[in-house]
Amino acid sequence: MMKVAIVGAGSIGFTRGIVRDILGVPEFRDNTHFAFTDISKRNLDMVYRLCKRDMEANGVKSKITATLDRRAAFKGANYVFCVVRVGGLEAFQTDIDIPLRYGVDQCVGDTLCAGGIMYAQRGIPVLLEFCKDIAEVAAPGCVFITHSNPMAMNTWACNKYGHGVKTIGLCHGVEGGHRLIANAFGLPVEEVDIVCAGINHQTWYIQIKHKGKDLTGRLLAALEKHPVYSKTEKVRIDMLRRFGYFSTESNGHLSEYVPWYRKRPREIRKWISLDSWILGETGGYLRVCTENRRWFETDFPNWMKAEPWTFGPEHRGGEHGSHIIEGLETGRCYRGHFNVVNNGCITNLPPDCVVEVPGYVDANGLNIPIVGALPLGCAGVLNNSVSVQRLGVEAAAHGDDELLRQAMMLDPLTGAVCNPPEIWQMVDEFLVEQARWLPQYKNAIRRARRRLKKSKRDRTFIKTKRSYKGAARKHVKTAAELRKQRRK
Amino acid sequence: MMKVAIVGAGSIGFTRGIVRDILGVPEFRDNTHFAFTDISKRNLDMVYRLCKRDMEANGVKSKITATLDRRAAFKGANYVFCVVRVGGLEAFQTDIDIPLRYGVDQCVGDTLCAGGIMYAQRGIPVLLEFCKDIAEVAAPGCVFITHSNPMAMNTWACNKYGHGVKTIGLCHGVEGGHRLIANAFGLPVEEVDIVCAGINHQTWYIQIKHKGKDLTGRLLAALEKHPVYSKTEKVRIDMLRRFGYFSTESNGHLSEYVPWYRKRPREIRKWISLDSWILGETGGYLRVCTENRRWFETDFPNWMKAEPWTFGPEHRGGEHGSHIIEGLETGRCYRGHFNVVNNGCITNLPPDCVVEVPGYVDANGLNIPIVGALPLGCAGVLNNSVSVQRLGVEAAAHGDDELLRQAMMLDPLTGAVCNPPEIWQMVDEFLVEQARWLPQYKNAIRRARRRLKKSKRDRTFIKTKRSYKGAARKHVKTAAELRKQRRK
Amino acid sequence: MMKVAIVGAGSIGFTRGIVRDILGVPEFRDNTHFAFTDISKRNLDMVYRLCKRDMEANGVKSKITATLDRRAAFKGANYVFCVVRVGGLEAFQTDIDIPLRYGVDQCVGDTLCAGGIMYAQRGIPVLLEFCKDIAEVAAPGCVFITHSNPMAMNTWACNKYGHGVKTIGLCHGVEGGHRLIANAFGLPVEEVDIVCAGINHQTWYIQIKHKGKDLTGRLLAALEKHPVYSKTEKVRIDMLRRFGYFSTESNGHLSEYVPWYRKRPREIRKWISLDSWILGETGGYLRVCTENRRWFETDFPNWMKAEPWTFGPEHRGGEHGSHIIEGLETGRCYRGHFNVVNNGCITNLPPDCVVEVPGYVDANGLNIPIVGALPLGCAGVLNNSVSVQRLGVEAAAHGDDELLRQAMMLDPLTGAVCNPPEIWQMVDEFLVEQARWLPQYKNAIRRARRRLKKSKRDRTFIKTKRSYKGAARKHVKTAAELRKQRRK
Amino acid sequence: MMKVAIVGAGSIGFTRGIVRDILGVPEFRDNTHFAFTDISKRNLDMVYRLCKRDMEANGVKSKITATLDRRAAFKGANYVFCVVRVGGLEAFQTDIDIPLRYGVDQCVGDTLCAGGIMYAQRGIPVLLEFCKDIAEVAAPGCVFITHSNPMAMNTWACNKYGHGVKTIGLCHGVEGGHRLIANAFGLPVEEVDIVCAGINHQTWYIQIKHKGKDLTGRLLAALEKHPVYSKTEKVRIDMLRRFGYFSTESNGHLSEYVPWYRKRPREIRKWISLDSWILGETGGYLRVCTENRRWFETDFPNWMKAEPWTFGPEHRGGEHGSHIIEGLETGRCYRGHFNVVNNGCITNLPPDCVVEVPGYVDANGLNIPIVGALPLGCAGVLNNSVSVQRLGVEAAAHGDDELLRQAMMLDPLTGAVCNPPEIWQMVDEFLVEQARWLPQYKNAIRRARRRLKKSKRDRTFIKTKRSYKGAARKHVKTAAELRKQRRK
Repeated sequence: MMKVAIVGAGSIGFTRGIVRDILGVPEFRDNTHFAFTDISKRNLDMVYRLCKRDMEANGVKSKITATLDRRAAFKGANYVFCVVRVGGLEAFQTDIDIPLRYGVDQCVGDTLCAGGIMYAQRGIPVLLEFCKDIAEVAAPGCVFITHSNPMAMNTWACNKYGHGVKTIGLCHGVEGGHRLIANAFGLPVEEVDIVCAGINHQTWYIQIKHKGKDLTGRLLAALEKHPVYSKTEKVRIDMLRRFGYFSTESNGHLSEYVPWYRKRPREIRKWISLDSWILGETGGYLRVCTENRRWFETDFPNWMKAEPWTFGPEHRGGEHGSHIIEGLETGRCYRGHFNVVNNGCITNLPPDCVVEVPGYVDANGLNIPIVGALPLGCAGVLNNSVSVQRLGVEAAAHGDDELLRQAMMLDPLTGAVCNPPEIWQMVDEFLVEQARWLPQYKNAIRRARRRLKKSKRDRTFIKTKRSYKGAARKHVKTAAELRKQRRK
Repeated sequence: MMKVAIVGAGSIGFTRGIVRDILGVPEFRDNTHFAFTDISKRNLDMVYRLCKRDMEANGVKSKITATLDRRAAFKGANYVFCVVRVGGLEAFQTDIDIPLRYGVDQCVGDTLCAGGIMYAQRGIPVLLEFCKDIAEVAAPGCVFITHSNPMAMNTWACNKYGHGVKTIGLCHGVEGGHRLIANAFGLPVEEVDIVCAGINHQTWYIQIKHKGKDLTGRLLAALEKHPVYSKTEKVRIDMLRRFGYFSTESNGHLSEYVPWYRKRPREIRKWISLDSWILGETGGYLRVCTENRRWFETDFPNWMKAEPWTFGPEHRGGEHGSHIIEGLETGRCYRGHFNVVNNGCITNLPPDCVVEVPGYVDANGLNIPIVGALPLGCAGVLNNSVSVQRLGVEAAAHGDDELLRQAMMLDPLTGAVCNPPEIWQMVDEFLVEQARWLPQYKNAIRRARRRLKKSKRDRTFIKTKRSYKGAARKHVKTAAELRKQRRK
Repeated sequence: MMKVAIVGAGSIGFTRGIVRDILGVPEFRDNTHFAFTDISKRNLDMVYRLCKRDMEANGVKSKITATLDRRAAFKGANYVFCVVRVGGLEAFQTDIDIPLRYGVDQCVGDTLCAGGIMYAQRGIPVLLEFCKDIAEVAAPGCVFITHSNPMAMNTWACNKYGHGVKTIGLCHGVEGGHRLIANAFGLPVEEVDIVCAGINHQTWYIQIKHKGKDLTGRLLAALEKHPVYSKTEKVRIDMLRRFGYFSTESNGHLSEYVPWYRKRPREIRKWISLDSWILGETGGYLRVCTENRRWFETDFPNWMKAEPWTFGPEHRGGEHGSHIIEGLETGRCYRGHFNVVNNGCITNLPPDCVVEVPGYVDANGLNIPIVGALPLGCAGVLNNSVSVQRLGVEAAAHGDDELLRQAMMLDPLTGAVCNPPEIWQMVDEFLVEQARWLPQYKNAIRRARRRLKKSKRDRTFIKTKRSYKGAARKHVKTAAELRKQRRK
Repeated sequence: MMKVAIVGAGSIGFTRGIVRDILGVPEFRDNTHFAFTDISKRNLDMVYRLCKRDMEANGVKSKITATLDRRAAFKGANYVFCVVRVGGLEAFQTDIDIPLRYGVDQCVGDTLCAGGIMYAQRGIPVLLEFCKDIAEVAAPGCVFITHSNPMAMNTWACNKYGHGVKTIGLCHGVEGGHRLIANAFGLPVEEVDIVCAGINHQTWYIQIKHKGKDLTGRLLAALEKHPVYSKTEKVRIDMLRRFGYFSTESNGHLSEYVPWYRKRPREIRKWISLDSWILGETGGYLRVCTENRRWFETDFPNWMKAEPWTFGPEHRGGEHGSHIIEGLETGRCYRGHFNVVNNGCITNLPPDCVVEVPGYVDANGLNIPIVGALPLGCAGVLNNSVSVQRLGVEAAAHGDDELLRQAMMLDPLTGAVCNPPEIWQMVDEFLVEQARWLPQYKNAIRRARRRLKKSKRDRTFIKTKRSYKGAARKHVKTAAELRKQRRK
């Protein structure tokens, strides 16, 4: 029996989906043991009940166990999925709010930029603990599949410091962009072939083909005249215009990885759209996560009343996870875009960084083709991000706040907005306000606390915009408001 | 309409097969233009008539043209297949006979060792001419697919000096070994997954799996107790015993790439089998080629009387060629083992050498996964061969006989049998006797001729075994004998 | 007789110095032929007369020739020095002024940032012409020694596209910093050992030792308490504080390579000093060059009246040039810091970029030791600059304005100040205003001209600050004022 | 006070020399603490007495201590010299004799080939112990300088597995060849500039210059007509003839690294000379070592009666050791050829192997210039040796007899002489006969013993030439004979 552990299994949507996806593979239907684990007993119970009900309704012989004991869940596992968010919404709030005081206005803040760098500081020590457990108790050759952001930094840390555990990072950004491209051309997505290569959330569509015909150079025109995208994706289209290639990530996300679009508060609104949280809204993702949680807490009873999900090959969702396992276990070849150590795949990015590139999974393993050199400008943009990631990873793994500060300085948007004293003070504020999730920084936190106290006392503390809400902030709906909205 | 040119199309078996394979793909059936070219008008006519008849019998709308004008054939081609043998049997005879005089006893002599090195000297200038023509007149992005030996050296030269033409080298050695492995385990070949990596004819099965279970370490025992292979494949089994991994090439072929099995005439017979030409017989391939030609010249009239071949997906043969085109043109993913520039795929072989490794072909192109490091001993064996190949390629491309002599010296078997003065004299004899196929060596040939004349005159010519037939030579059958044999 | 050609020989100070330095080597004193060439006959005459007089006064038997015919000067040369400035002060003025309209406030503007990138566009085509001439008419193995900025981009282009001419880039920035460091510690410069590694003008002192004791970590404290440097070198000290290592270039220069110190006009004055043009003044170098030229034109007659210079080992200046030649020709080992293709010397910078690193010159050649990895943050800062340089070099060599625009976008300071539409319009203005020095951009200039005309017509031209003088501009003195000043 | 430890200090000649060399540097004269250690109390006493006497006679204030406790000697050391020979003459005898039974006829047997590989198996575990001690008790940054053969394998193992201790391997082979070259040209050695690059004992003189004029291509002619070298250095001259470059090592030594000169017993005498043990004599080095020891044991009393040595700059010997320390401590630049991890210095050898290349030592450290690519043939010869070394190092470090057997198979001379079953049986004999020095092979030795017993019992033991003395063996003189000889 194949054992699949899920850590952070309380992420109900993900967990329920991966169970459905895996049990939709005939060979796995009656043959899989899911081991759920989480730090929240309540969430674990909820997801267990939902999934159990789904499985019973479909009459499968696979089984689920749920436990707060992570090592018990990992014991003998062949695959471990990770969907944890270290610090949850509480920490996330400060990822957005602290940089805003210094003028750094993020939309998502979970990848790069000040928020993403801090997210890595919280997550990496925890993921490395998972890796240690896997190395010690999981089945030999167990594959660690992580969805946790910041994807590139987390996957980098696990592959470098994770006790030899093979780690793959998964994201569906490439598929989202793929659909958008197909739409822009008015083509069915199945007919559009893409090669996408870069780093997670900054992956470039370096080749777009339709029935053998190369469309890469025609995308700009198609997007510029598209009635919706020309309004909602201005940053992405502008990057395509300047660099010649389209990038995976949504308008709002992309805008926070580069120095050009969010550094002047009065201009931000020109580049973004407020139609969806992901198109550029200040703290958009934080808002939507907060609302989702509020909604979920109200709505959960209804979930148990709704119809159970149906399993089967035709009901699988879009996540790579079940396909990777299917490829490895059955040999049916699956092509997706995965996050792995570069190792020469993209020749003009460093060999040790984590890239997002095509992969072919079959019984022989995960096969990462050599992509070669990215176009020079595209590589230039990514190399800057990779420097930030490398500093972020090493800082997180060693609790080295010097490197953490350097990561912030080299971050393109942070560096375009702040000056060095501001950046250092911002890091001090981060260390102190997120102290409980940063055990590796114990000494640095003590020094930061002392420094802040002193600077406030002697009035050298740099004045910040404590009440600044950002250039494009929206109201976070209450549960009541959400209910009202859903009803419409 | 897709245009497929075939140079050396007079290789009837190959050409007829590739036509059948390609037209067996529904999308290509009525949509392909084959352009045959050869230097022999007679062979070209014969193959044209045979293929034309096959096509008519199958009612396909694709077309064939045949021409002695190579550039006309290449004009606008999307794919060019190459199956030429420069110098033909006449030169091949000297590839075997000259080294024998010096005690170097080859079975095949078309890959490495003295014969293989000389074969590259003849072939490379011709293949580079083909590349030049392709670069100038074929369709942009035309893929050059070569089957000509020595595969690794030829493909290396084309990719390095071939005017930017993308060249892939194809061989079915990996498939042959794959079947042998499956047989040894008594498993259907479809159930055995393999990763094979190395250089052509010295590719190592570094991973063998059956339904996810790793069998790599069990192959030695399976072969040692196999009733046939334990007798016919002694060299391969011995290499597996010493290095831990099985190698692609037949017993006879493998024995001539390494210093250990053919250096002592009295021992050769212990390591080989005479059951088939490829198991180690002296000049085995030369004999079988000679017999085949004799037979073909007698038998051709019968071919035209036999039933035409039937086309269709179920009638395709084992060659990669049609599958590569299918993958590129239709996007249906095909996995095979191909010869390509290493470029970091095998991390402990030089980046510029040509490796034989897995590849995934689809609408995105030929995707070569990163294999990583070979086991140290396996890499050691190959690195020696790669040095020989590199010297052979540079010698051939520049007509540099210093490098040619160094290639011979570093060749493992030649170096284990001869001393340096012998090797230099052997090269002199090669240059003079193969002069007509070595235009790039004009000056070196003049010097070699002078040197040989002088050394014979002043009796410093090293005595050679001019009438030596080798340790395991068989009689070359006449057409009459062959007829008799077939009748049985 | 050794022949040393100097192109741009009209740079009187440099040329006169190198003649004195070379003739100060006993072996070269009576044995050197200097061939001066320039595009200005007047300057050539002036420098010829000065140097001739020096040589006669010292009674050396070496000789000088001066010619407007560059190839005649290069003919048979063993060494060619280059000190040209393509476009002169006239182009330089626009390098400073155009970016200022967009808020990019440069102090020097000859290395990176908008001005430096444009300087490379003008210089590279000319330097490549020099290389072509050298390859064709100079002595075999002739070494091309260039002092022209932007050093890194120029040297990169010559080594990559310069027809195989070995090019070394020379700068005395490392020595300047070395002296400053020694001063900060109150030590004689001869007692302080340094290893400096990076890219020209951004080279990091990664090891500072005094009699074997490592002082690297003590420099920050020494500078912070230094009465002068703590005021004049605030940017450099701040970088040292943030990144742990000191950087070669002056305060003003360094501030324009990074995004942190010159992006807010009101803050610039806090980080710089107006004590010397090089400490941060807006267009400081342009001012001083302009004044120097004015002064020189007035003052030249006095030069001819002053004492001739004295030659001799003890009268050599600080330039590397004569020492390199001495090392190569006499074998006396010289250690300096030179600009060469990286080629693995600094392992965490790309192998193809041009680095400034230690070198040992002796009769065996220019020996560049492997430095290894730079500290991560230092490497991060440089990798950004290298991306800009690579785009700048390829743009200049191919006249590709797409790459030129990408170079500008990725430039740290330009990217921190401008948004993409501004950057593109700025490039258009550059192309049009510097058209006469940018022959390789002919087509791009035509398109830029059209675009500017159209945008002005339809009022989409982005408003710029045409009369903005920068945050820290000083008056350019007239010849009369300079005379007055000197008198004091 | 600088502390210099010497392990294997009982090597009297070396130890006494290094003391004289170091104390010949004015800065070290009164300022050095030598700590001698050895496993032989007797030898330690002898060397202590000799050196003490020398020091007293010269009135220096430096001091010596001698101890059997290695860690005590290493404690606080700044430099540790290593001259141990693990297994001594007793093991060495089997390094020569066992291979001879299989027809492998070595002259020196301490570098590559069967004997050299086994020597590494004995030495590496011991050297790694030294490294561990250095890492734990020596001064931080202590440099480990080893003279122990096999140099390349030992230095490789220490740098890879030596607990982070920086290890440099020293040999004077390059200097010996340098003198020979100068002699061949009739030039003073000081006037001949050389660049030598490769691996220890197979280092190629890739550039030879006299006053700037390149002589590299003229050496063959000079040697061919040299009255002595043309007779004593036939192998070296032949290699130069075939590969275009001269190699460091003596005729006898070189002949055992390649497959061409010693594989046919009847030919060996044609290629070698018996004039000196190092020119090719079977077991020449073993003979001379044995005689030297016999002589020393008789002669030691006389040493104490002879005049003490005189110290001073003009009395320093040819070893690099004291110059390296002088360079590092005083900053006076020294150029020598050293054994270090390749790390990109020679671009066509693997980055992880140990190369012998030029280095510049000064207060900045040991600076290894980038040499670039070796000529293709030269690189080919070395790559074969590097494969053997890599297998030998990994085998020794991990006690892996599979890798050890593969090292033997890939060894050029062993592979040219033996077949695989012979090689495996030879390894079994080695393991058993050298068991006491091979603690890491405990299990493999048990299996080997069992296998040999069984094969002898069931008569599958391959017959060997137990009494074969080799093609060119000389009598080992007794002490009496040596005395007689000296008297003449």
